Amino acid sequence: MDNIEVTPNQDRELSVVGKPIPKLDAAQKAMGRAEYIQDIKLPGMLYGKILYSKFANANIVKIDTSKAKALAGVHAVLTGEDVPKKMKMGFIKDNPPIKKGRVSSFRDEVAAVAAISLDIAKKALDLIEIEYEELEGIFDPEKAMEKDSPLVHEHLKSNVLKMPWNIHYGDVEKAEKESAFVVEDKFTTTWVTHCCMGTSGAIALFDAADNLTIYSNTQIPSLAQKDFLESLKAMGLENKRARVIKPIIGGGFGSKLDTYAYEHIAILLAHKCKKPVKIMFDRVEEFNATSTRQPTVIYIKQGCDKNGRLTFRDMRMVLDNGAHTSWGATTPSVMLMPISSLYKVENVKYNAKCVYTNNTYSQAMRGYGNPQATFAIESSMDILAEKAGMDRIEFRKINKNQSGDETPQGLKITSCGLEECIDAVKEELKFDNNSEKGVGTGIASLIHVGGGARIYGSDGCGAILKMDDYGKVDIFTGGTDMGQGLDNITAQIVAEELGLLAEDINVVHSDTDVCPWDVGAHASRSTFVAGNAALGAAKKVKKKIQEFASKILDVPAKDIKFKDRNVFFPGDPEKSMPIGKLLRKAHFSPNGTMLMAENFYDPDNRNMGKDLKGNMSMTYSFGAHGVKVKVDEETGKVEVLEYVAAHDVGRAINPLLLEGQVYGGVVMGLGYALTEEVVHQNGKNMNANFRDYKLFTAKDAVKIKAPVIETIDKDGPFGAKGIGEPGCVPTAPAVANAIYDAVGVRIKDLPITPEKVLAALKEKKGD
Amino acid sequence: MDNIEVTPNQDRELSVVGKPIPKLDAAQKAMGRAEYIQDIKLPGMLYGKILYSKFANANIVKIDTSKAKALAGVHAVLTGEDVPKKMKMGFIKDNPPIKKGRVSSFRDEVAAVAAISLDIAKKALDLIEIEYEELEGIFDPEKAMEKDSPLVHEHLKSNVLKMPWNIHYGDVEKAEKESAFVVEDKFTTTWVTHCCMGTSGAIALFDAADNLTIYSNTQIPSLAQKDFLESLKAMGLENKRARVIKPIIGGGFGSKLDTYAYEHIAILLAHKCKKPVKIMFDRVEEFNATSTRQPTVIYIKQGCDKNGRLTFRDMRMVLDNGAHTSWGATTPSVMLMPISSLYKVENVKYNAKCVYTNNTYSQAMRGYGNPQATFAIESSMDILAEKAGMDRIEFRKINKNQSGDETPQGLKITSCGLEECIDAVKEELKFDNNSEKGVGTGIASLIHVGGGARIYGSDGCGAILKMDDYGKVDIFTGGTDMGQGLDNITAQIVAEELGLLAEDINVVHSDTDVCPWDVGAHASRSTFVAGNAALGAAKKVKKKIQEFASKILDVPAKDIKFKDRNVFFPGDPEKSMPIGKLLRKAHFSPNGTMLMAENFYDPDNRNMGKDLKGNMSMTYSFGAHGVKVKVDEETGKVEVLEYVAAHDVGRAINPLLLEGQVYGGVVMGLGYALTEEVVHQNGKNMNANFRDYKLFTAKDAVKIKAPVIETIDKDGPFGAKGIGEPGCVPTAPAVANAIYDAVGVRIKDLPITPEKVLAALKEKKGD
Repeated sequence: MDNIEVTPNQDRELSVVGKPIPKLDAAQKAMGRAEYIQDIKLPGMLYGKILYSKFANANIVKIDTSKAKALAGVHAVLTGEDVPKKMKMGFIKDNPPIKKGRVSSFRDEVAAVAAISLDIAKKALDLIEIEYEELEGIFDPEKAMEKDSPLVHEHLKSNVLKMPWNIHYGDVEKAEKESAFVVEDKFTTTWVTHCCMGTSGAIALFDAADNLTIYSNTQIPSLAQKDFLESLKAMGLENKRARVIKPIIGGGFGSKLDTYAYEHIAILLAHKCKKPVKIMFDRVEEFNATSTRQPTVIYIKQGCDKNGRLTFRDMRMVLDNGAHTSWGATTPSVMLMPISSLYKVENVKYNAKCVYTNNTYSQAMRGYGNPQATFAIESSMDILAEKAGMDRIEFRKINKNQSGDETPQGLKITSCGLEECIDAVKEELKFDNNSEKGVGTGIASLIHVGGGARIYGSDGCGAILKMDDYGKVDIFTGGTDMGQGLDNITAQIVAEELGLLAEDINVVHSDTDVCPWDVGAHASRSTFVAGNAALGAAKKVKKKIQEFASKILDVPAKDIKFKDRNVFFPGDPEKSMPIGKLLRKAHFSPNGTMLMAENFYDPDNRNMGKDLKGNMSMTYSFGAHGVKVKVDEETGKVEVLEYVAAHDVGRAINPLLLEGQVYGGVVMGLGYALTEEVVHQNGKNMNANFRDYKLFTAKDAVKIKAPVIETIDKDGPFGAKGIGEPGCVPTAPAVANAIYDAVGVRIKDLPITPEKVLAALKEKKGD
Repeated sequence: MDNIEVTPNQDRELSVVGKPIPKLDAAQKAMGRAEYIQDIKLPGMLYGKILYSKFANANIVKIDTSKAKALAGVHAVLTGEDVPKKMKMGFIKDNPPIKKGRVSSFRDEVAAVAAISLDIAKKALDLIEIEYEELEGIFDPEKAMEKDSPLVHEHLKSNVLKMPWNIHYGDVEKAEKESAFVVEDKFTTTWVTHCCMGTSGAIALFDAADNLTIYSNTQIPSLAQKDFLESLKAMGLENKRARVIKPIIGGGFGSKLDTYAYEHIAILLAHKCKKPVKIMFDRVEEFNATSTRQPTVIYIKQGCDKNGRLTFRDMRMVLDNGAHTSWGATTPSVMLMPISSLYKVENVKYNAKCVYTNNTYSQAMRGYGNPQATFAIESSMDILAEKAGMDRIEFRKINKNQSGDETPQGLKITSCGLEECIDAVKEELKFDNNSEKGVGTGIASLIHVGGGARIYGSDGCGAILKMDDYGKVDIFTGGTDMGQGLDNITAQIVAEELGLLAEDINVVHSDTDVCPWDVGAHASRSTFVAGNAALGAAKKVKKKIQEFASKILDVPAKDIKFKDRNVFFPGDPEKSMPIGKLLRKAHFSPNGTMLMAENFYDPDNRNMGKDLKGNMSMTYSFGAHGVKVKVDEETGKVEVLEYVAAHDVGRAINPLLLEGQVYGGVVMGLGYALTEEVVHQNGKNMNANFRDYKLFTAKDAVKIKAPVIETIDKDGPFGAKGIGEPGCVPTAPAVANAIYDAVGVRIKDLPITPEKVLAALKEKKGD
């Protein structure tokens, strides 16, 4: 444990940070008063609805919208012809919001209407007549790479995206030759989806000067604003404003990290109709027309020396991109992180190909590729340990990351509690005590970005803070709360710094008119980056208060302390004053002032260059999960008996919310491991409902212990690191490893359904 | 013209300031899209309605609300018993929002209901049974001062408010003795009211933690917040938040400078019902239950020496306070200004008494007492000039205020264009050419605060400014736009400073969660104070941009200029860059930043002390009005033929809005002079409708010329001074003087109705 501080409250006594304060908006939500986009109805608002393709791959021969246009109550009908040529979506702008001439997936938009009611809008869709010429589709990414495969986009001449995921650190060939033990496997993962309780939706409206306001469930208000401004420009509306308002969101998980057809179509319809237009997805649309996690085919080979030290890791991947390109195509940039840096390994090779198919296009989802990569790595770690004859926990500890490391990719490991996490799991779950038949234990570790992740020119976040005459704070943050509780975190950080209570802090968020820029709620970056932005603003105001209090209380500014809504001088109980009173004195004195501060925090991390090297985050989060399962050898059903998820979080700003993140992550990870799958047949979603899409629900609740390792990161706000995604990262391999431990079959294809377990058991028994 | 700069564009070429840019929200308003409080409907909202007293003065013997409570759809019925003891309104907190035991005016609130519809709420009011014991009322303030007058508030032992309006600068008695000419008169003014097109209203709601949000048509979001927090405290809700949101307002004119019963009752009802409660006044309520301008009885004596120099001014006033006390009771503090400082006069005496009566209670109204005082002063000036045998214009010029003066009250006259205003009026209106029968001309001048007015501990305003990646600005201002166009002024000032267009500036205003503190939209202070606050924020951002541009363009920061959305170095056309591009460079560079700034501006003016001396404003606005009237000697009807309103405005930030302010002020002043009167009979409003309350309307439109004198005030933003109120200040005396000039009768009682003119003409003719 070199250079690690595992001190919960390192350098000062904390009053608000570290406390399990319930969500400030919990009661509002519980009472049904929180305003979701579903609740918003604007005067004169129309209802938009989108018509999707009937085929996975087809030419559109003819569209006749005349009957739909003639329907009473219909204000507009749009087809691909009505979309400005330069209006394109996605990471490489390959996707117009309504397609013209050709559809490439069942999810492709072919028309949209706006009408005075949702019923009329639906009726109008039924009246649109389209003649298609069906074409052969391609649905398997590996087949799509073959030379004579049908092309999803003919002008591109290939189904393989031109993306640079190809690295080689060290010398993998040499290391392989020198290895004592080498294992090689193939793993596969399929589509899973976010299942946000709040479905997607947007309301667009224009003012008289053609400035846009759009309400949308987005995790990226500032980047969405950029996308919308580009759409306005494509529509001939230059130099306009786009105001993005994010209502209270019922879950994000990465699904809202891009802008989508429904938003751009709402914009087109609103502009055409000169009225607000709302498009809301129902649950079937939410399943059919939002983006999934990338299915992957993963080839992994790794080795170790006779002492169990990892010598090399060689991975190759094929990702199903679907018919269009969203941020999902960039998940290999995050997969790089566990591949190069989960455990110490000097020689690393990685090649990934994103391949167009006629499937739904994929997107970001909690972990952003890390769950797929870690499934392969951590399954392979167990296989390799077994081959090397080593204890699987000892094997991991031999190769553990440590504070001070710089990994082959250039990640600089500062705070690191990986070993403590492994030990905590070992402590909580008795690994060597599985005498019961069909019962086994598994372990898997994780590394994830915990201090921002530079995927854009800026990884920054702004905050503006003002105080009133009563000692209350309003803080406008760029950070986006999508249900995870960022507003609480922000409030606790500011309250701690200014000696106030969390309830004294009002967090104003996610209206681009009011809130400063932020790159978005992704990469588990919000606590770290938005937290530091808020903390910096609080520090600026604190300094001003200290200076003013110094004059009033006649003690040095630096000696003024803050607690329980008071400033005070520790040495003298007389020298104390309520903060509100002090602020009024500052305000109502000659040349008075009200306290305000602004702060922009951009972490000192790096954008990876062309060589795909660089310290992408200021710090990294670590964790280890342990699970005990019972496998029913008659049915193949896996029951989770116990779960331990130990995380190095730097500092738990709010242990209650932290638990919530970990529990939620683990449950999502268990679904990924065992039950969840968007079933596609030739590009068509066959289970677009909660009966057939098998989410873990309350009834599947699992006993989860979540030991918290506090390493007090030197750069994190009060030492905190991000913990949004890690909870779901190592779950699947931990479960797979436990199943192997229990019944000796290794399932390499997610989800690990009873059918697959049973088939493997039968095969093992030689049935 | 000593030390006056009458240079329109003094020191730099201006691109945006000085331009007649139409209101940025004009199209929205014209298209019916602007959201007034009338348009706001919240989910689950109830409708509140107030029951008023049936008598001007009575004991409440019994209230029975049982039938009202039993009515289906009624959620709450409140009486005075339900109002917490400490919940009081007004300047001296003498007014509970619902009265208990005793009513003192027809406007007194006796009960309130909240119901699911307005109809049910009205029906419920009808079901409330009240038994009154009527008492003798007192309706004449001078009679109310008599010893055995009935007492409006018995516990006070007197109807005269204990307020300090009693000054004596110099030695009036001595000066009177030494005067060559002395005149003495009595003037009277009556109730007039604001007639805002948008009636009053509020919507209150509480969140689950008992924090209040209130939408209200207020001119004082920050001070209203303070009042509401006090009400919450009285309700036992300590340490809560009160968020005040001001929707788009349809006119203020001082009517919204206090908080009122309907707001506090909405709060009580919302808390009781746990739902949003909206109370909206209809037009009859707006007439009956909002506050008027103070009726005044004015005794004035003034004199001059043989050269026409004013020697003294001695004024005494009785103000009808009505049954309760709002800010109206403090209007003598502003009356002091013209009394002590309109024209040079060394010896000044003033005594004012505010007197309780059983009339409606009065409040602030455009000019805040100045129109009443100036009516007496400027009428008396003509009387005195005539007595001294002097030309009335020459007489005024002899006594003119000048830059550099310090008046007996301690007002420091900096920029001063009074003489230029008088000359402009003289130039535009041929004064000595009235040969036509019944035609006459009149002139009157004004002084008003033009650089803030310190009536509270702080006269400040805060502004927060942020810029985005596209060169657009969001500015959050404390300043309140109530229709006068402050948002435009703010946008133009910021755009000018940053080389942008007005449309690039988005002004976010009047939500206390977001906007910094401001003392309110009164005293013609907003352009000066909120303008300086915004300008200061823009200057801070400008400096940062210059520093960054200096590095990029490689020229000294101070030489970087801003224009047409570009920064440039004047010497070299190559050294130029769009501001948006520069901002993106600043943002996307290592340790990038987004530009934000906050600024609090509190003018360097003084609160008057107990001696009622002090420089209450940073600068003063001056003006002179001239009018030509025709009096029909058969009917007494006065027709306004021509009107000239010349104002020293420092700088016209937006000449179009300036004209609007002046035209609107003059028309309001003409109503005050000739037609407007809230007719009260024993405390009862007899003309609560637009048929009988004779507002000047479009059909009464008068030709108005508005010469603008720009004196480029050294402290004003781009040299500007306030011009919100002056337009209506000298109108009545100018008209009265013109009538005297036309037909030789002097009317000393406003409004100057045909009846009064005819009676005076008859009296003059000896009929």
